Amino acid sequence: MAEFQHQRHKPPAPLARPRELIVACAPLRTQVNLSRIARTCGCCGITRLVACGNAKVIGKIARDSVDPGRPDSLQVEVHRTLPPMLARFKVEGYRIVGLEQTSDSRNLHDYRFERRSVLVLGNERQGLTEDELALLDDAVEIPVYGQPLSYNVATAAAMALYEYCRQFPEG
Amino acid sequence: MAEFQHQRHKPPAPLARPRELIVACAPLRTQVNLSRIARTCGCCGITRLVACGNAKVIGKIARDSVDPGRPDSLQVEVHRTLPPMLARFKVEGYRIVGLEQTSDSRNLHDYRFERRSVLVLGNERQGLTEDELALLDDAVEIPVYGQPLSYNVATAAAMALYEYCRQFPEG
Repeated sequence: MAEFQHQRHKPPAPLARPRELIVACAPLRTQVNLSRIARTCGCCGITRLVACGNAKVIGKIARDSVDPGRPDSLQVEVHRTLPPMLARFKVEGYRIVGLEQTSDSRNLHDYRFERRSVLVLGNERQGLTEDELALLDDAVEIPVYGQPLSYNVATAAAMALYEYCRQFPEG
Repeated sequence: MAEFQHQRHKPPAPLARPRELIVACAPLRTQVNLSRIARTCGCCGITRLVACGNAKVIGKIARDSVDPGRPDSLQVEVHRTLPPMLARFKVEGYRIVGLEQTSDSRNLHDYRFERRSVLVLGNERQGLTEDELALLDDAVEIPVYGQPLSYNVATAAAMALYEYCRQFPEG
C-alpha cells in the first residue's frame, strides 16, 4: 500500500498580499519559451509579465495562466523594447534585477531579493543587451556545474522565480 | 556605460566531489520534456538520468549535456519501468524522493535533501503511479500560488534541482 495518496491540483497556497515581482523579457527567439515563462509566472502568483516585439503567448503551453476573464490573471504587456519600461519601473521604486552572467553578477543562492523587483530575462542567444544591462541594479547568475554551460531561459526563470517565492512564501 | 559586462558561458563552478543525485523519470508524454530535463541535469552536474519506455533525448534541446565522448557526460539509462530501478536504488542507500502533490508531501522550501538521493519525476498527466508512490521515502511538493495550479514537469524538475544544488553547492 502506498503511504502517499495523490492530491493533484490542490487549491493554491494563499498569498498574504499580492506579489510585487514583475517579470520582464527582452525580445525572445521563441514564443515557446515566453509561454513556458508565462505558465511558471501564473503558478507563482505573478501578475505582470512584460514582453517585447512580436511576443505572443501560446495558450496550449501557458495554460490558464493568462485568462482575461479572471481578475487575478497574469497580465501580459507587449512593448517594442525593454529599456523604456525598465527606466519607468526604476522610477516606480522597483529594483531591476537581471538574470545574466556578467563581470559583477551575484550568486542566486545568496541573493536577497527586494519584494518590489523586476526580474529581467535576456534573449536566448544574446542575453541582455548593453542598454538593458546599463539599467540593472543587480545582475544575478545561477551556478552552472557542467555542459551545456547555460540554462534554457525558461529554466533559469523558473529557478529565479522559485528562489523569490522561497524568500517571500506569502507574497 | 554599463557597469555589467557580459561573461556568457563562463567556465563551470567546480564540484568538490561528484554529485550523488540521480534523476529518474516515469514514462513521460514528450521527449521535449525529457530533453529539457537532460539539459538542466547537465548544467547542474548530474551524471545519471533514468528514463522509461521509448525515451529518446533530442540533441537540439538537450545540447551537450549528453555526449558519449566526454567522461563526465550525463548518462541516460532507459528502462522499461521505474519501480524495479527505484527498489534497486533503495538497496544501494539512496533516498527516494518523489516530486508530487500527495497527502503527505513536504514543502520543497523546507526540505533537506540527503546527498545520496533519487529525484523521481512523474508523468505530465498522471503524475507518479501507485506503485511508484509506494517506493518513495519522501514526497516533496513546490508551493503553487495561482493558475494553472501545476508546474510543467521540466519546470518543477528545474526548481528541485536548483534547491538541491543550493544545499550542495560543491557536490
